[in-house]
Amino acid sequence: MAKRVIIVGAVALGPKVAARVMRLDPEAEVKLLDRDYIISYGGCGIPYYIGGDVTDLEGLRSTSAHVLRDSRFFKNAKCVDVVHAEALAIDRRAKTLKIRHQPDGKEENLPYDKLVLATGATPVRPPLPGVDLPGVSLVANLHHAKLIKDMIAKGQVESAVVIGGGAIGLEMAEALTDLWGVETTLVEMMDQLLPPAFGPDMALLVKNHMTEKGVRVLLSERVTGILGDAQNGVQAVETSNGEIPCQLVILAVGVRPNSTLAREAGLAVGRFGGIRVDDGLRTSDPDIYAGGDCIEILHKVSGETVHMPLGSLANRQGRVIGTNITGGWGRISGTVGTFCLKVFDFGIARAGLTERQAAAAGFDPVHAVVVQSDRAHFYPSQELMYIKLIADRKTRRVLGIEAVGKAGDAVKGRVDAVAALLHHDVCLEEISNLEVAYAPPFASAMDIVNNAANALENIMEGRQEPIDVAEFLEDFKDGKIRVLDVRSVVQSSPFMEKYGSQWLNIPQEELVCRLDEVPKGEKLCLICGSGPRSYEAQLLLRSKGVKETRNIQGGVGMVKLSDPDFAPSE
Amino acid sequence: MAKRVIIVGAVALGPKVAARVMRLDPEAEVKLLDRDYIISYGGCGIPYYIGGDVTDLEGLRSTSAHVLRDSRFFKNAKCVDVVHAEALAIDRRAKTLKIRHQPDGKEENLPYDKLVLATGATPVRPPLPGVDLPGVSLVANLHHAKLIKDMIAKGQVESAVVIGGGAIGLEMAEALTDLWGVETTLVEMMDQLLPPAFGPDMALLVKNHMTEKGVRVLLSERVTGILGDAQNGVQAVETSNGEIPCQLVILAVGVRPNSTLAREAGLAVGRFGGIRVDDGLRTSDPDIYAGGDCIEILHKVSGETVHMPLGSLANRQGRVIGTNITGGWGRISGTVGTFCLKVFDFGIARAGLTERQAAAAGFDPVHAVVVQSDRAHFYPSQELMYIKLIADRKTRRVLGIEAVGKAGDAVKGRVDAVAALLHHDVCLEEISNLEVAYAPPFASAMDIVNNAANALENIMEGRQEPIDVAEFLEDFKDGKIRVLDVRSVVQSSPFMEKYGSQWLNIPQEELVCRLDEVPKGEKLCLICGSGPRSYEAQLLLRSKGVKETRNIQGGVGMVKLSDPDFAPSE
Repeated sequence: MAKRVIIVGAVALGPKVAARVMRLDPEAEVKLLDRDYIISYGGCGIPYYIGGDVTDLEGLRSTSAHVLRDSRFFKNAKCVDVVHAEALAIDRRAKTLKIRHQPDGKEENLPYDKLVLATGATPVRPPLPGVDLPGVSLVANLHHAKLIKDMIAKGQVESAVVIGGGAIGLEMAEALTDLWGVETTLVEMMDQLLPPAFGPDMALLVKNHMTEKGVRVLLSERVTGILGDAQNGVQAVETSNGEIPCQLVILAVGVRPNSTLAREAGLAVGRFGGIRVDDGLRTSDPDIYAGGDCIEILHKVSGETVHMPLGSLANRQGRVIGTNITGGWGRISGTVGTFCLKVFDFGIARAGLTERQAAAAGFDPVHAVVVQSDRAHFYPSQELMYIKLIADRKTRRVLGIEAVGKAGDAVKGRVDAVAALLHHDVCLEEISNLEVAYAPPFASAMDIVNNAANALENIMEGRQEPIDVAEFLEDFKDGKIRVLDVRSVVQSSPFMEKYGSQWLNIPQEELVCRLDEVPKGEKLCLICGSGPRSYEAQLLLRSKGVKETRNIQGGVGMVKLSDPDFAPSE
Repeated sequence: MAKRVIIVGAVALGPKVAARVMRLDPEAEVKLLDRDYIISYGGCGIPYYIGGDVTDLEGLRSTSAHVLRDSRFFKNAKCVDVVHAEALAIDRRAKTLKIRHQPDGKEENLPYDKLVLATGATPVRPPLPGVDLPGVSLVANLHHAKLIKDMIAKGQVESAVVIGGGAIGLEMAEALTDLWGVETTLVEMMDQLLPPAFGPDMALLVKNHMTEKGVRVLLSERVTGILGDAQNGVQAVETSNGEIPCQLVILAVGVRPNSTLAREAGLAVGRFGGIRVDDGLRTSDPDIYAGGDCIEILHKVSGETVHMPLGSLANRQGRVIGTNITGGWGRISGTVGTFCLKVFDFGIARAGLTERQAAAAGFDPVHAVVVQSDRAHFYPSQELMYIKLIADRKTRRVLGIEAVGKAGDAVKGRVDAVAALLHHDVCLEEISNLEVAYAPPFASAMDIVNNAANALENIMEGRQEPIDVAEFLEDFKDGKIRVLDVRSVVQSSPFMEKYGSQWLNIPQEELVCRLDEVPKGEKLCLICGSGPRSYEAQLLLRSKGVKETRNIQGGVGMVKLSDPDFAPSE
């Protein structure tokens, strides 16, 4: 008898499992269940549909050969039956799934040999007054997408508020601002964007870039209610600091795994509410698999399970489930939380743990911030990249990387290379010597990832004594510290003019002859364009007895992006 | 007493060692020797200087802060003495280096505590008649670079011949053609470009791209002499097939490690003539280190030593030598031969072993070729990438990757991620699940590297029966095989028109209903846009008893680039 496979959920992982099962076992009988008639779509593309990069919704529902992935397509091209129904309950002993057909409401018990839960996650709808008003929308499916885009396209939205500074919130803020010119305010209750995936220093670069692009970003601000009425819809968002008038509110405050069906069937569920699975993606019932946004998986660096709702993981997991259902041997050992996003001109990527996450997992994290071009410095066109690398002080194990820059592919490429190694518990030296490809149009001979590891090693060994830009800016503005700028006179002069005696200049190559000009016995911060020359100056000064200096991490490059008002106007 | 360090060679590795030693041990006395007064330059930038991307030679000799890296700079900024002298002999017992000062010819014995050999490599000057004529040049240093660029800028070069189809030959051919419009012929005696770093199938894509851009590429062609006279310089290059008129000849047929000094001192030298070193970059004399283009290093995949003259390796090795000389503990475990280059609009990258190299190293290599976009398929702007992945049949160990595409950073990023893992002896499944970052502007949810591993796994397990494009094209042109195109009627029609009954079309989603139209009992090649749909068709047909099909690797995408005349003109 052919194997009966039922898959609950038909967005990303579900269709992948179905197709893989049919390829490996053409005799299988696969039923793909969803309560929605819109299935198998690229949910991650929603901001690009709303922002206009993707013209119509069918683009997100079609194959790369422009064939619509509807029930008919799955029947004809994949020999998979799509069933429009809601899954109500699993009878594990009888191995049946109780479903309710749509739209007629007829109930039925479907027998299965293998069941796959691809139930996804549900966006959190915060319990705010006014959250159900017309004009308030989640961004979780194509219905939401169409509703939002229609409102904008009809000219009903002059200003909008996005609640939540995670990846989707940021992408939505860009989509509204960039093409449509909607006056957009992004409200995040934490004190930084992109918590918890990025450290506050890197997140600040993103915030400043968004501000520059016209998004109003409010941090540490709590939304207390949404104002308006049923007839006219939303009129404003109310926060702890006042009211923000708007006609559209996007809710993007996170998602929770849909595990009710699993839990009610007695399957094990983890601390974030996600279904627990082994490395073959089997639940606690060996005939039931689960994957995608509804599960928890092992984080390879922290050693703890996490909820990581990413389309890329769902697709890879779907293939592994298909392999295992048909008797193959597929394993996914865990995640290191690699992801990237585009926010206006910035590519942003990360993998592993942030410092905060690392400390929570019991490590003693140390970091370096390095700024460097994505090309050989003599190559004509180039963009700066900003990378933060984190390692454990005692073991030197590499724990995480965060990167930002205008050359998005280059930023992603650096993070991907380090991410591959995070699965292998490597120590810092391996990143120092990481064999990334070099040619002047694509990199420096000593790539930024190599230099980030080198800088971090120097910090760990006490050779480089760094100061983070945030601390520097605070102390400098308070008049507590002075700067010794070791760049050229030309580069330094505007800063000396702006900051007077708080900003000194001795070019690095003159330092050895002008040592007597260096102030002693005070906390002196050294700066250059991006960090390496001021590090060299720090070593020289130390060898000459000037030991109290601190090297500003990432130099002027990092300072400029962290505080757009700091540098003299050009 | 301060440690006396002498470094022979001041181009890439030498200056890096010098600077690192001084940073770690400011009391050291470092002498940096070179017989040339031009030191510390980016040799990899020469093609970009000649091609005009870099305006003047100083660009290649300056720091990223535009400070010229001459003797004075090393003295002032690095506290390093640069000595213009030739190294004549090492007395290992006395620990002295005999040198001859430039330009006065005075000889001297310098005592050292640690000696570093950074003697580089010398380009091969083939023993051809006419090789010493004016207008024949190597591309090994800035003197060559200036000579070549001056000739072109003065309008003396209407046509040029580049001898050698390696990376430098290709970069030079682009430099001459692109900005200057010099009619350029590239002659390679092997039957492909970029031997031995790329397989012939991937190299063919590069050749066709160069041809499209106006470079005449001659393969399997041997240069027998260079014609001309001392007064008028070069007039033509003579090959086995005739004469090619030209006023400039670039010799780019490879390099050999400069190891005479080491060999004459009795240090161990490897099979390629490179100095042998351990993983701390010590030679067989523990007080003598060597690195860069003059050494041989362990290839981590083949397990054999190789000569790998790359600026990126030299820089990383230089830092490690500096660490070790000053009492630290630095190691480089070997190379996986990662490199990239730009050739016109193509980014090209590779790591590990080609199939030929893998077979020579005792593996049983199997490969897959996958064509996929660098973005989500619904994202508006995108470029195709072409990736070849190679693994060992028995162990499934990943052996190598080669990639080509117009989004150079994206191509390099994919190769870098896989290269990082080649150091760790991983099996294919790890690339299937490789956690590369995903967002629609930067990748597909199932990235091309994941899909390449998936395709290769399917081939290894016998599920996919592939045919390489080269074999397909040959058999198709001989009329030995027919094609079943499973794309849409619209996409297929022009091919059916051009190739008549040799080209059949049944769209994949109609295949199950039109099985009786599929010809049986003949060798049928299946094709789609890039491979996955025709693979799915192959599985369906096999389950229905049609077992003789072959799936064209990389589909129409790969066919088009492999033979620009194959597809009907649009």
